[in-house]
Amino acid sequence: NSSYRIVAIGGEGIGPEVVAASLTILQQVAKLEGFTLEVEYGLLGAIAWEQTGSYLPQATIELCDRADGIVFGAVTQGGLLELRKHFDFFCNLRPIRSFNSLLHKSSLKPEKVKQLDILIIRELVSGIYFGPSGRAEDEKGIYGFHTMRYYDDEIRRIARASLQLAEKRRGLLTIAHKENALPHLPWTRLVQEEATLFPSVILEPMLVDNLAMQMVLNPQRFDVILAGNLFGDILSDLGGALVGSIGLLGSASINSNGFGLYEAIHGTAPDITGKGIANPLGTLAACILMLEQWGETAAAQRIREAQERVLNKGYRTADLFPQEEEILVNTETLVNLLLE
Amino acid sequence: NSSYRIVAIGGEGIGPEVVAASLTILQQVAKLEGFTLEVEYGLLGAIAWEQTGSYLPQATIELCDRADGIVFGAVTQGGLLELRKHFDFFCNLRPIRSFNSLLHKSSLKPEKVKQLDILIIRELVSGIYFGPSGRAEDEKGIYGFHTMRYYDDEIRRIARASLQLAEKRRGLLTIAHKENALPHLPWTRLVQEEATLFPSVILEPMLVDNLAMQMVLNPQRFDVILAGNLFGDILSDLGGALVGSIGLLGSASINSNGFGLYEAIHGTAPDITGKGIANPLGTLAACILMLEQWGETAAAQRIREAQERVLNKGYRTADLFPQEEEILVNTETLVNLLLE
Ligand SMILES: CC(C)[C@H](C(=O)O)[C@@H](O)C(=O)O
Ligand SMILES: CC(C)[C@H](C(=O)O)[C@@H](O)C(=O)O
Repeated sequence: NSSYRIVAIGGEGIGPEVVAASLTILQQVAKLEGFTLEVEYGLLGAIAWEQTGSYLPQATIELCDRADGIVFGAVTQGGLLELRKHFDFFCNLRPIRSFNSLLHKSSLKPEKVKQLDILIIRELVSGIYFGPSGRAEDEKGIYGFHTMRYYDDEIRRIARASLQLAEKRRGLLTIAHKENALPHLPWTRLVQEEATLFPSVILEPMLVDNLAMQMVLNPQRFDVILAGNLFGDILSDLGGALVGSIGLLGSASINSNGFGLYEAIHGTAPDITGKGIANPLGTLAACILMLEQWGETAAAQRIREAQERVLNKGYRTADLFPQEEEILVNTETLVNLLLE
Repeated sequence: NSSYRIVAIGGEGIGPEVVAASLTILQQVAKLEGFTLEVEYGLLGAIAWEQTGSYLPQATIELCDRADGIVFGAVTQGGLLELRKHFDFFCNLRPIRSFNSLLHKSSLKPEKVKQLDILIIRELVSGIYFGPSGRAEDEKGIYGFHTMRYYDDEIRRIARASLQLAEKRRGLLTIAHKENALPHLPWTRLVQEEATLFPSVILEPMLVDNLAMQMVLNPQRFDVILAGNLFGDILSDLGGALVGSIGLLGSASINSNGFGLYEAIHGTAPDITGKGIANPLGTLAACILMLEQWGETAAAQRIREAQERVLNKGYRTADLFPQEEEILVNTETLVNLLLE
């Protein structure tokens, strides 16, 4: 019987609530599918700072070192970038899928988002988030700077991961770039070079400004979108807008050993923290990705079906603005419905 | 009687066609409103390169030096950034307004874009477009880099321009930033410091990823959005998606003398070049901004009304995918209808 170790990091805001909800569901599917989950709790972000004087305490790193996956809630900033970098979680998968029962929640016309199935792949440990930065002064005055820097090899490895995934899907890989203004970051050429081993994948380089526009004009045309760290951040939130609520989306950040960090795309949502009304489906979507990464596909499928069943019956947390014929539920009730 | 000098720069692709169409209309309103327009033609981009060996020839700069405005078509890249920089066109205004008769063209639900009226203000001569950049190598390999650099004073001057404009509109200024990952570019603090002289303006700092999402979820909540060069580029194309066609949007890029460059937001559209079917309304929208900048508000209003009249009657160029009860027209016919 398989056994997995999870490090649960609630973080701040609604983070701990949605992580707790997801763990309850994970434990049940583990029992049903005959594997065991051992959960340990780690600190990150503002709470870690208060308790240990560090945003990413050494103790958290050690917990993660011996784990099979990290289930993460949310923080406002401190520690998360360091955690991603420390474990070299370069490959961030952000699937944007619409739920049939929630099409009317989108501000887009339902026919524009029906059966939407985009996979955004975001490079997560380099680019402008991690390049040289600072504040300085010269004869023209005080300035601040952040450097969007990519080693060619960093682009090549995320390109290979993207090509592999595109090959298993519909075979269209759109490359977000801005080479007319940023010519020294030749994403198109580097991906093309890696693509010779993937003849079935069609490459589509697209300027990031146009890409943002096309994602709204005609989202269904996309299959896999590959983007650097900053562009991927913006485009994936935009993806959240397409499906109506960012509260539904989960993400997986994987390193080259297959070890991963699993988190919702949404943030800490301080306005609803502690009220017990947060939507756990984003974190749960991330947990589904974790189960798939482990090869526990039956367990992943069980949760997917539970989600669809509960949404089809009309149960909605408050972020989904329940309308007529829908039923407003809080986090606990939603979890109980998912467990049924 | 006033007289204005325009430098017309067609550029590439559909650029020359939409500039010619717009000039025809400008000349007619000039006649009707009793001012004269003197037009000279300048080269920029690939064509300039072929003919002069320079993307931005000195002759073009000299023409612009003695002009009251530049009406620009489109280029794929060469020369445009240099032109913006040379004349210090730091303040790029990109109004996003929906036309009542075109609401159904948007992929958003009509009620989400009705009476949409956002002004995106993009800093245009600094940031990552103009910071130190290059390709280099160190012990880890070959890399490329572009630096997002802003002098505090560059942020302050675009902040002041934005505050002035927000004060004359609905008084809400949303500041696009990414301070949780790019803390050395303190847009929020600098705008707040400039805002003490504008007590009636409400400031709303918003992370750019969230902003992109909110522009789709709830576009009508925005009034003025202030963004740096790169974020402004992405957000304004996204704005084009909201109103259904980027072909409708014009932009003005103004320097501290009030001198400006007026261009559509769309690109060269090589697929339809030379067919006589391009939509001139984007460039015309830019010309309206030029007339307003000159104080020729009656002329500006005339063109606005002509546009509304022709659109209300159902005339559409091909980019607007004419449906039932709409009439497909080419560029020339549209111009003739506007002149009526
Ligand atoms: C919290 C923030 C630093 C983070 C990011 O920009 O990567 C978040 O927006 C995300 O998308 O995971
Ligand atoms: C052509 C390109 C360099 C330009 C830009 O990125 O500024 C364009 O996208 C724009 O928005 O004016």
